[in-house]
Amino acid sequence: MAPLLKDELDIVIPTIRNLDFLEMWRPFFQPYHLIIIQDGDPSVTIKVPDGFDYEFYNRTDINRILGAKASCISYKDGACRSFGFMVSKKKYIFTIDDDCFVAKDPSGNEINALEQHIENLVTPSTPLFFNTLYDPFCDGADFVRGYPFSMREGLPTAVSHGLWLNIPDYDAPTQLVKPRERNTRYVDMVMTIPKGTLFPMCGMNLAFDRELIGPAMYYGLMGEGQPIGRYDDMWAGWCMKVVCDHLGWGVKTGLPYIWHSKASNPFSNLKKEFKGIFWQEDMIPFFQTLKLPKDCNTSQKCYIELSKQVRAKLGKIDPYFNKLADAMVTWIEAWDELNPPSGAATVAQWVEDTPYKGSDGD
Amino acid sequence: MAPLLKDELDIVIPTIRNLDFLEMWRPFFQPYHLIIIQDGDPSVTIKVPDGFDYEFYNRTDINRILGAKASCISYKDGACRSFGFMVSKKKYIFTIDDDCFVAKDPSGNEINALEQHIENLVTPSTPLFFNTLYDPFCDGADFVRGYPFSMREGLPTAVSHGLWLNIPDYDAPTQLVKPRERNTRYVDMVMTIPKGTLFPMCGMNLAFDRELIGPAMYYGLMGEGQPIGRYDDMWAGWCMKVVCDHLGWGVKTGLPYIWHSKASNPFSNLKKEFKGIFWQEDMIPFFQTLKLPKDCNTSQKCYIELSKQVRAKLGKIDPYFNKLADAMVTWIEAWDELNPPSGAATVAQWVEDTPYKGSDGD
Repeated sequence: MAPLLKDELDIVIPTIRNLDFLEMWRPFFQPYHLIIIQDGDPSVTIKVPDGFDYEFYNRTDINRILGAKASCISYKDGACRSFGFMVSKKKYIFTIDDDCFVAKDPSGNEINALEQHIENLVTPSTPLFFNTLYDPFCDGADFVRGYPFSMREGLPTAVSHGLWLNIPDYDAPTQLVKPRERNTRYVDMVMTIPKGTLFPMCGMNLAFDRELIGPAMYYGLMGEGQPIGRYDDMWAGWCMKVVCDHLGWGVKTGLPYIWHSKASNPFSNLKKEFKGIFWQEDMIPFFQTLKLPKDCNTSQKCYIELSKQVRAKLGKIDPYFNKLADAMVTWIEAWDELNPPSGAATVAQWVEDTPYKGSDGD
Repeated sequence: MAPLLKDELDIVIPTIRNLDFLEMWRPFFQPYHLIIIQDGDPSVTIKVPDGFDYEFYNRTDINRILGAKASCISYKDGACRSFGFMVSKKKYIFTIDDDCFVAKDPSGNEINALEQHIENLVTPSTPLFFNTLYDPFCDGADFVRGYPFSMREGLPTAVSHGLWLNIPDYDAPTQLVKPRERNTRYVDMVMTIPKGTLFPMCGMNLAFDRELIGPAMYYGLMGEGQPIGRYDDMWAGWCMKVVCDHLGWGVKTGLPYIWHSKASNPFSNLKKEFKGIFWQEDMIPFFQTLKLPKDCNTSQKCYIELSKQVRAKLGKIDPYFNKLADAMVTWIEAWDELNPPSGAATVAQWVEDTPYKGSDGD
C-alpha cells in the first residue's frame, strides 16, 4: 500500500460552485490540505463542506498576491488552478475537477484515486523501453524477457495521469457526433508513456511531483479575454512532457479512474476549441521536433527556453502565441518569487543571457 | 466482429511434440490452414489431431526446399517457425506455441484469440500520438480531446502482439527469483506501441500482416550450433519495429490473452540467455539509434540495410553478429525465391549497389 504522504501533498480544486462533491470524497480527502481556486466572479460565495482543511483564493486574492504578474493566471477558466500549484508548499499536488466523483472498480469497491496516484508517483517510471506487462512495479508484475537489465532501476516519476469512467474526455466534434457514448471499460493498468511520445493530458484527475515538474505545469492563458479555451491542460501536458523527456523523468497514465458525472456543453465547447482545432495541427509537430539544450537542467530553465521557441515558431501562427510566451516567462518569474529557489539569481541571469537563437530543432 | 479471413490467414506452429494442444483450440482453429514446423529430430513422428487442414515440414524438408540457404533457418529451436512464414502464401500469419491454451476473460468466457488478432490487424494503428483511452478503434472508445484530427485516420497495422495469463514471459534471472509468480491481471485493452519505442516482442501469441512485414519477421539463428537462445522473437521484434517505424506501419500490443501453461526450465534458459543478457545492452542502443535511408521503401530493402548495419556495428561485439548478418541476407534471398516479388531483380541489384557506408545513425 502506498504511503499517505499527508504532510507532503495538497489537493488543488478550481471551482465556480459550492463544493458539495467533496462529501463523496470525504473519507479519502479529509486528511489532506485543500487549495481551492475560484474560477469565476469573486463576489460569489463558494461553500466548502465542514471538516475540511483548506485555503481559498479568488481573483482578488490572486491580483493582490501576484500584482502585475497576475496577468499570467487565467480568469473564468479552470486554468486558474495553476495558481494553486504555485502557492502550494508541498512536494506533491493532486488536482481534480468538481464534477468528478468516486468511481467503483469491477468488483464494486470504491476507488481511492489519491492512493493510486501516490503509488504511481512514489514508484519509478520506465520511459526508455516499453514493458508489455505495463508497470513492472505493480504487484504481480515485473519486467519481461528481453527488457534490458541496465534500464530496470527506472527513472523518477514526475506525473500520474488518471482516467475517467462514464463521460469520456472528448472534444466538441466528437461530443456532437457521439452524444451517448460512455466509457465503461475499466482497464486495470498503469503504464509509462514512452520518451519522445506526446499524449493529450487531461487535467481532471491528475497528480504530479511539484518539486520536479511544478514550474512546467502551467495551464496557459484561457478563459475571459483569450481567443481559446479547453487547451489549458493540453498545453501543460505537451510542455511538461518535453521537459520530462529532456530531464529524464517519467509520466504515467492509466489507473486511477474517477467517475466523470456531467458532459460539458458541446456547443460552447466548440466555440472555445475552434481555434485550437486548427492550431494543434502546428503545435503537435512543434512539440514533436522541439529540442532543449543540455544546459537546461531544471524545469525553470527548460520552461524559459520553451517560451523562446514558442515565440519564435508559433508566434507566426497567431499573435496569441507571443502573448502566451510572455505569460510563460511571467509565470516562471512569479513561481520563483513565491518559491525562492536557492539559485534564483542564476535563473534570472540565465534568462537574460540566453536569447533564443533558433539553433535547435529547426 | 472481425471478419474470419479463412482464406487469407495461416497458423504457424513450431513443435517438438504431438499436437494435443490443438484439441482445445479446435473450435477456433479448424477453419484455418496450419503450417507445422518440427523443431527437433526429423526421425521423430509428430501426431496432429484428426480434422485439421495442415502442411508439415521437418528439417529434411527445409534442407530439400532451401538447399544451401537452409543455413538461415534455426535447428532444434522454435526460431525455425520463420520457415513457416516464408512458405505461407497468405496475407496474414498467426503463430502460437504448443504450450499455449485457450484463456478465459474475467466473465469466464473462452477467448477466441485469433478473432481478436484479426480485429487488431484489420483496424488502423496510431503510432504517432498516444491516445489515453488506448485503441480508438475499439467499440466504445474514440480519440480523446487534444488528439490532432489530421492523425485520426491512423496507419496500417502490421503486427498484433498478444499476451499471456498464468506463466509470464520472464527471463531466466526473474524466473529464478520469482518461481511462483503468475500473471492474473487481465488488462482489457489494445494499444499501439508509439513510433520510436522498442518493446520485447514475445513470439508465443503473435499475428502479423505477412505482405507488409513478413520479410522482417526473421527469428535469427538460435538453437543447435549457436551461442545463444531465447532471443529469436526479441531479435525479430526489434528488427520489425524499426522497419515498421520507418515504413509508417503500426504495432499493437495487449489483447488477446492465451493461457500459458508451463514455465520452461530456468536453468537451461539461463544457459541459452547468458550471452544475450550482456549483448542486449548493446543491441538496444543499436536499434534505438538506427536510421534507415529514405530509399529503403520495402521490408526487404530495409532488412538488407539492417543486415549491413548489424555487421558494421554489432560485429565488433562478437563474430556471431557477422554470421547473423549473413543469415539475414540469406533469409531475404530465400524469401524472394519462394515469394518472387515483381521487382525481385531490382532488390538483388539494390543489395549489390548499396554497400553499408556507416553514414547513418553513427
